[in-house]
Amino acid sequence: MSEKVILKFDADGLIPTVVQDSQTMEILMVAWMNADSLKRTLRNELWHKGATSGNTQKVMQIKVDCDGDTLLLFVNPTGPACHTGARSCFYRSLDSNS
Amino acid sequence: MSEKVILKFDADGLIPTVVQDSQTMEILMVAWMNADSLKRTLRNELWHKGATSGNTQKVMQIKVDCDGDTLLLFVNPTGPACHTGARSCFYRSLDSNS
Repeated sequence: MSEKVILKFDADGLIPTVVQDSQTMEILMVAWMNADSLKRTLRNELWHKGATSGNTQKVMQIKVDCDGDTLLLFVNPTGPACHTGARSCFYRSLDSNS
Repeated sequence: MSEKVILKFDADGLIPTVVQDSQTMEILMVAWMNADSLKRTLRNELWHKGATSGNTQKVMQIKVDCDGDTLLLFVNPTGPACHTGARSCFYRSLDSNS
């Protein structure tokens, strides 16, 4: 779309970002990006997940929600998304006893 | 899992919640839930999206991320998730010109 998208970062300069596997459609993680991190990701088409893990994720597409305060990244993961080593951070179910 | 999950709500008492269509795997929206809203959802297996839309979403499963500060709801939507009438709030792409 040619429409200029205005993004809304929160008071800490961050925007919540859902990371979805572009092939399996599994949600891998939710992270908070700042403007610099987003700029670098748009430029490189690669998200460096942080110095600790060294993992990168190839970004296939970025979507933004209706009110511009949340991002959705479609990625091809090159390793586990979670710091525990799990493929996805959402490996636990919540039930009504929790 | 039998492990007791400790949820972390933010300073405003909210937890970011990704809502995913359990059949198409499409991300429909990201919303912020409070503890009451989550309790009601766990009890009723139904998420009342707010008085304005009147829409409800049947909750099939709730997952929690590794550090307990984000939820993932698998739902069967009974109507559009977005206040614009779109099926998903993520109907816009962001490119490097944005």
